Amino acid sequence: MSSTNTILTQLTTTPKEKPTVEQLGFGKHFTDHMFMMDYTIEQGWHNARIIPYQPISLDPSAMIFHYGQSVFEGMKAYKTPAGDVQLFRPERNFKRLNISNDRLCIPAIDEQFALDALKQLLSIDKDWIPSEPGTSLYIRPYTFATEPFLGVAPAKSYHFIIIMSPVGAYYSEGINPVKILVEKQYVRAVVGGTGEAKTGGNYANGLKAQEIASKEGYSQILWLDGKENRYIEEVGSMNIFFKINGKVITPALNGSILAGITRDSMLHLLKSKNIDVEERRITIDEVVQAYEEGILEEAFGTGTAAVISPIGQLKWQDTELTVNDGQIGEVTQMLYDTLTGIQNGTVEDSFGWIVKL
Amino acid sequence: MSSTNTILTQLTTTPKEKPTVEQLGFGKHFTDHMFMMDYTIEQGWHNARIIPYQPISLDPSAMIFHYGQSVFEGMKAYKTPAGDVQLFRPERNFKRLNISNDRLCIPAIDEQFALDALKQLLSIDKDWIPSEPGTSLYIRPYTFATEPFLGVAPAKSYHFIIIMSPVGAYYSEGINPVKILVEKQYVRAVVGGTGEAKTGGNYANGLKAQEIASKEGYSQILWLDGKENRYIEEVGSMNIFFKINGKVITPALNGSILAGITRDSMLHLLKSKNIDVEERRITIDEVVQAYEEGILEEAFGTGTAAVISPIGQLKWQDTELTVNDGQIGEVTQMLYDTLTGIQNGTVEDSFGWIVKL
Ligand SMILES: Cc1ncc(COP(=O)(O)O)c(C=O)c1O
Ligand SMILES: Cc1ncc(COP(=O)(O)O)c(C=O)c1O
Repeated sequence: MSSTNTILTQLTTTPKEKPTVEQLGFGKHFTDHMFMMDYTIEQGWHNARIIPYQPISLDPSAMIFHYGQSVFEGMKAYKTPAGDVQLFRPERNFKRLNISNDRLCIPAIDEQFALDALKQLLSIDKDWIPSEPGTSLYIRPYTFATEPFLGVAPAKSYHFIIIMSPVGAYYSEGINPVKILVEKQYVRAVVGGTGEAKTGGNYANGLKAQEIASKEGYSQILWLDGKENRYIEEVGSMNIFFKINGKVITPALNGSILAGITRDSMLHLLKSKNIDVEERRITIDEVVQAYEEGILEEAFGTGTAAVISPIGQLKWQDTELTVNDGQIGEVTQMLYDTLTGIQNGTVEDSFGWIVKL
Repeated sequence: MSSTNTILTQLTTTPKEKPTVEQLGFGKHFTDHMFMMDYTIEQGWHNARIIPYQPISLDPSAMIFHYGQSVFEGMKAYKTPAGDVQLFRPERNFKRLNISNDRLCIPAIDEQFALDALKQLLSIDKDWIPSEPGTSLYIRPYTFATEPFLGVAPAKSYHFIIIMSPVGAYYSEGINPVKILVEKQYVRAVVGGTGEAKTGGNYANGLKAQEIASKEGYSQILWLDGKENRYIEEVGSMNIFFKINGKVITPALNGSILAGITRDSMLHLLKSKNIDVEERRITIDEVVQAYEEGILEEAFGTGTAAVISPIGQLKWQDTELTVNDGQIGEVTQMLYDTLTGIQNGTVEDSFGWIVKL
């Protein structure tokens, strides 16, 4: 499909009432319209359309219900104080969607066309973008198998859809430091699996450990690698960073970790501030040792939904590691302020990350 | 939900034309009716109903499209020469469905109620069960998350559905021995993951390796373990058995392998025939060594769809192992004849496996 393809647009005749800031929450309310296109072997991606937000009808044998062939992305649009609408590195999300598509044997989409479609959808639903501090419009592009067939094989038909949800802060506690459980029994992903792709199965897999952790009062799981159960991978739906003895360390991308766009942005920000940063393998034992030596200075997760989530406490087996007295650290705060500032349009974007509508 | 709950039944007024034996294939045609019930936190499983086979309508934010929370089962109903309808160990499938449900944080179903529901559905659609040799009615119970919400957490609402498909032979080649590629790069499952559950993500994960293998002329992948990449796990959607020097060996259930019902039945059949059988860890190196010593006598996969699939050739790195001159082995043939005989009602069931309608 070429990017010059036109998108049929059908506007709603029954616009919904918009939620108040108090009602926002995360992922509960959806805008008036959605973007959708279909894939068949014969026609490729076709029938691109913007239509009123509406239910999807599928055969009970549609492969998505059975064999998990699905991928998704998550990004945000922001309203600047001047009232402009802007996206943060959206081309990265569509690129990653295609990386996920490839891993899951789903046909690639035209990234530029998808971005154009998103911009059209945004301009139609722009009144849905909240402007209060901390709020934004969460954007969810996703693809899944629709072929009505029982049998393990890549499907012959798919939907690609974009829906949008006005959101408040992801963590109800705001940016307060959270308690994290380091998981020793369950495994999120292993090299050779789908950890690098944003596919439903990874998230379904993680629910069990998350449920146990949350009963014990922890807000997220810190995952270790699946082979040796010692290397740190990521935390919940976020990449993880540690500041140890003045140096910032994050696990290197190894094939089982999602290549977070926030992670990449943090690495650029840190380098631009001349803070030492390392991407490498790091074991949980190294973190515990740093803690015992008193040089574990900060820890935080990064992701689109939360931007940054400072880690106040880590539990590994019988050891409880309190980080920075359970307070948000200096570097963490600086990264949060800078990145959210760039995203909201209150800090200058010297990286070329912002795409205006 | 108690098993005395009634099931509302609404029969179709437009029955479909049934496929001929030639048209059957696998998983392409579906019977006139389906069973369905819904789960909410407030009501538990409720609204059990048999309705005409029809599309399912879901909000675009329904969690199944995003976070992969789904499980399924596969079993068969057979028509005996006398015209009776029978199921093979169906209680095992509903038990395993609940094991999968538990791993995926999906609320358990009442197994006895589900079996009763299936029997009612079967009695309504019994004319759809083909009776030609090798044919059967494939039954697909499945559960998935329906809550309209973006956020990684167990859903608050689900569908449980049973659909049924008249099928011919799973492998178009019949029971001819197949060529299998031993996978060294991709990993299906790792201990601590979801390998033991029948959930969509496991199958989506496997597509990439399967696609590569099939381009090279192999019909399935033999998976090795995710930690050390040397222990044999399973093959495609089947468990695997080797006959080495007179002894039958199958990988022990270790948490990352599906506990196949056909596998369990084969173990019982082998013991009843006084054939030595071992469930234990077995490396690919041991199989290669047995081949080189000339004592790799038979190899086969087992599963509901194919019952048995003899393996004629295994490829591991640069070594090609031809098993039993590419012919079906004696024990493989005996197991196939006995088990399909019991399932079709032509061999006496001394195990209590058959459940008559
Ligand atoms: C598993 C996982 N890791 C990390 C991230 C962070 O990625 P990003 O910064 O692109 O949002 C996400 C998603 O948001 C995720 O789902
Ligand atoms: C991954 C996997 N292994 C093994 C099997 C065999 O299980 P069963 O004999 O119960 O059909 C199946 C399914 O049928 C499967 O999907």
